[in-house]
Amino acid sequence: VSSEILTADAFEARLRSMGQTIYHRHHPFHQRLTSGSCSIDEVRAWALNRFCYQRTIPIKDATILSRLSDVRDRRIWRQRIVDHDGDLDDAPEGGLARWLALTDALGFEREYVVSLRGVLPAVRFACGAYVDFVATRPVLDAVASSLTEMFSPDTIRERVQGMLAHYDFVSPDALAYFRHRLTEAPRDVNFALDYVKANATTAEAQTRVIAALQFKCELLWAQLDAVEHAYSLRRPPPGAWMPGAGMMRTVSCKP
Amino acid sequence: VSSEILTADAFEARLRSMGQTIYHRHHPFHQRLTSGSCSIDEVRAWALNRFCYQRTIPIKDATILSRLSDVRDRRIWRQRIVDHDGDLDDAPEGGLARWLALTDALGFEREYVVSLRGVLPAVRFACGAYVDFVATRPVLDAVASSLTEMFSPDTIRERVQGMLAHYDFVSPDALAYFRHRLTEAPRDVNFALDYVKANATTAEAQTRVIAALQFKCELLWAQLDAVEHAYSLRRPPPGAWMPGAGMMRTVSCKP
Repeated sequence: VSSEILTADAFEARLRSMGQTIYHRHHPFHQRLTSGSCSIDEVRAWALNRFCYQRTIPIKDATILSRLSDVRDRRIWRQRIVDHDGDLDDAPEGGLARWLALTDALGFEREYVVSLRGVLPAVRFACGAYVDFVATRPVLDAVASSLTEMFSPDTIRERVQGMLAHYDFVSPDALAYFRHRLTEAPRDVNFALDYVKANATTAEAQTRVIAALQFKCELLWAQLDAVEHAYSLRRPPPGAWMPGAGMMRTVSCKP
Repeated sequence: VSSEILTADAFEARLRSMGQTIYHRHHPFHQRLTSGSCSIDEVRAWALNRFCYQRTIPIKDATILSRLSDVRDRRIWRQRIVDHDGDLDDAPEGGLARWLALTDALGFEREYVVSLRGVLPAVRFACGAYVDFVATRPVLDAVASSLTEMFSPDTIRERVQGMLAHYDFVSPDALAYFRHRLTEAPRDVNFALDYVKANATTAEAQTRVIAALQFKCELLWAQLDAVEHAYSLRRPPPGAWMPGAGMMRTVSCKP
């Protein structure tokens, strides 16, 4: 950690470099998922547990919204919540609904998924840490923790291509969530990146932004660690989802 | 979950039964640790990561202390903080100092351990969830989350015997922390068990107490999952302790 302030370009390059090293695209479970090595139950476990993360997103974004003092910033940030929660007059839309379309396609009962009953405790703890972070750290750090979206489009493209190529139980419709993220994430990250570049005006603040992005990468990595440990290495903790539980009678497959 | 209130005896029996199933004594890593199957680096990783949990204990106890309305309850609960933090006029004593004696004996630099730099993110998230739980849930639930101490003496005896029998790098002095806990934990649990029996006066409150103890068991289990994944199954996340890092020049062994 340097004690000299970085230029805007060097600061951005430093942040972007984290996508090449510690972002969860480099996690072995992501590699398994995209290369077709996962069993259907591993894919199910991943989707079930990631729903816990998905439902955390609008909550953490509402927390950040409550802490932004500039009305223009709030108008922009508010769109993130719309993206995930959808609109009243357009009921089934929004990222959460699209994620549930994926868990539907994988055979889960919605009530079971939404209840979070089968979610790994480690995933719940990571999601809780995210909300706690954006509620208690300086708002600059809270905004910075969203910067993983810099890395998500490439990762999403890789994930969607890999899953469609390798799993006959996954259809393009089931992956609609990711298609929407490909346009939402770049828009969101433009704002967040401009925000941290404008507001991190000291070396100390830049260091905090870098640490916030590292925290977020750790949080995503820890979730895949937990899924891998429980379902790839078959050491599910007591009470976690066991294959077969929370399933609808019939499992949708690609027609 | 029953909607009828349990008798005091049945309620206590229900709580105690969780020690037979979901308490971390039944985690495979505990079995490895006590049976001598761990490498010195696995024992180091366990001790390093558990320091993060140890340092959380007086913080969560101070949080509970701040929420107890009865002065007699606070006088009793305060002793837990003394046990872990020690006294000013008796500087090196207290559970945290005793835990650092263990990490010393395993060869770690104190500065490295105390910095938490090498701690697994999943362990940090679990510890954060503990503090959040006792700060935001009803105080009955917060007190109930300490009830794992019902199960700890047997587990500690098994752990100490196993570690002394199997590891020549562990001495009785290095395990002084656990010797003290054998007298502290039963005293603490007597109070907490009486408290939840007196204050859980509805079936709903009893259910919450059971859920709080389950949460705490999940939190302990998740920490061993993280250590096992990173160091027994050798998948440490980016930035976590790697064997060799944070070590003193010379490693103490049993003479």
